[in-house]
Amino acid sequence: MDCVSQTMNEFELIARLSASLPTNASVVVGAGDDCAVIDAGMPDRWLLFKTDAVVEGIHFDQDTPAEKVGHKALARCLSDIAAMAGAPTCALVTIGLPREFDVARVETIYTGINSLAAKYQVAIVGGETTTNPERILISISMLGSVAKGKATLRSGAQPKDAIFVTGNLGGSLTGRHLEFEPRLEEARWLAEHFAIHAMMDISDGLAGDLRHILQASKVGAELLADAIPISREAKLAARVNPTGKPALVAALSDGEDFELLFTVASRDAVPLLDAWKKQYPDLPLSCIGKITGETNLTIRDKLGARALGVHGYDHFQKP
Amino acid sequence: MDCVSQTMNEFELIARLSASLPTNASVVVGAGDDCAVIDAGMPDRWLLFKTDAVVEGIHFDQDTPAEKVGHKALARCLSDIAAMAGAPTCALVTIGLPREFDVARVETIYTGINSLAAKYQVAIVGGETTTNPERILISISMLGSVAKGKATLRSGAQPKDAIFVTGNLGGSLTGRHLEFEPRLEEARWLAEHFAIHAMMDISDGLAGDLRHILQASKVGAELLADAIPISREAKLAARVNPTGKPALVAALSDGEDFELLFTVASRDAVPLLDAWKKQYPDLPLSCIGKITGETNLTIRDKLGARALGVHGYDHFQKP
Repeated sequence: MDCVSQTMNEFELIARLSASLPTNASVVVGAGDDCAVIDAGMPDRWLLFKTDAVVEGIHFDQDTPAEKVGHKALARCLSDIAAMAGAPTCALVTIGLPREFDVARVETIYTGINSLAAKYQVAIVGGETTTNPERILISISMLGSVAKGKATLRSGAQPKDAIFVTGNLGGSLTGRHLEFEPRLEEARWLAEHFAIHAMMDISDGLAGDLRHILQASKVGAELLADAIPISREAKLAARVNPTGKPALVAALSDGEDFELLFTVASRDAVPLLDAWKKQYPDLPLSCIGKITGETNLTIRDKLGARALGVHGYDHFQKP
Repeated sequence: MDCVSQTMNEFELIARLSASLPTNASVVVGAGDDCAVIDAGMPDRWLLFKTDAVVEGIHFDQDTPAEKVGHKALARCLSDIAAMAGAPTCALVTIGLPREFDVARVETIYTGINSLAAKYQVAIVGGETTTNPERILISISMLGSVAKGKATLRSGAQPKDAIFVTGNLGGSLTGRHLEFEPRLEEARWLAEHFAIHAMMDISDGLAGDLRHILQASKVGAELLADAIPISREAKLAARVNPTGKPALVAALSDGEDFELLFTVASRDAVPLLDAWKKQYPDLPLSCIGKITGETNLTIRDKLGARALGVHGYDHFQKP
């Protein structure tokens, strides 16, 4: 081997691989956003196209209830459709299995997939089984659509925008990552009622994912430490283990929250908060900071503003 | 474990998992054909949607040239689009990698994918990298399209149809499986010029795959042993190892040929052969038998007709 991954993380690898991908006239948005956006010839709509995989031992364990494995596998894809303010249409399920596998477990994984699919009127239109000798791997491909020109991309954030996040962050791996509800309805409501400048779902942690919006939009951001909504699980974990990860750090860096992260013009911030409270009284919406004309990410607390060095979850990075 | 796969092969598992999949009004053809067919609202066309995975140690080896690994991964999906007489549009590439991997090898796999994609004007619009600790796994999702009503399904074979196959069969694993050209152009030419009743690509072996057409169409078939086109590789292997697999058995049962298998009304058989020879003088086209009103598969040689007991390649079956 010339070169192994010890010197390269997931995002560097993706950047290298994405540098020279073939394209064609149908591509509205290619690699690098939550979904690819394709103009397939529908009069009023664009296609959304996404794939996402979960792997045993990485995203779930051998003793994770099978129905939750299936729920999570599909919900991750649906969360990416939500991030574009789209509607899901259909999915293909690829499952890699050891040569000997528990048929009942595989069927129950499908029960989890199918019941979530039925809830959102998503058709499961096939897929395949293949052999992956050491562990179960589930890769789901998803098609959706969005009105032409209405996909909420990562690249639209503008200086002075207010930054919002739904829900509470951190500690998802204690259980929420297996049960979360994709924010499909909320995202479509947002895009229908407000001019959303940029949006994505948080899968790798707030700090890391916000960087993707900043890079795509060529802007910076200042977060307000006191405004970050911290989950009960993250607070509890910090109380139980006072020498471990502080709750704010968990909220900034833990993966698998699958909440919506988006920006709107600052003048829309208060009307949005008011309208949201009426529409979704049970789901928190927090204004956590603002977009800046710089290209760095800072966080402000009572000691002042400082660079935010907390990276998001990165599959290949050593702990 | 209640129940392991020793009693269940890949096709039985797929049949169980496919029994109760959620669907919706956009689905023209769901699980069970070469691609799913979706009416996404394009005025004149249907979408084709397909996913296919290759796994290190199963579909390629650690010492398989990386560019050929990429070529094969994408060509398999393109072959499924061909089987529907469709045109490919774009693809997403999911790659599962060990925590330490050879970056140059991964980049060269992408070179193989990208150069084949460029050849057929397929855009690579993203995908993802994930961790699969023990081996590389590549899953490609493909979108294509076909004129409404013109997708060539497995379910249209009719009694008395002539059965055709392109190319020569068997022995693909000696090298052809890494270099084959998807029959995209040939399939579209066929569908434009003749009423193709049923079509699929041969991935699991002629005998096994023909059974899929027979089951979907609720018909039977009689093959002519002398008409099966046997590859040079299969003939050579049988000569080198006279006690091994006879060349005809290899042509009937070896996987990964990726040739087109299709049926047309018997009256079209001779005009088709004539037109094909003019259009594709370098690619054999063979009439290998006929569809029958029974539901069994037989093969006729100089000793008479007998049941064809040769099954196609099945990933989970023990050798």
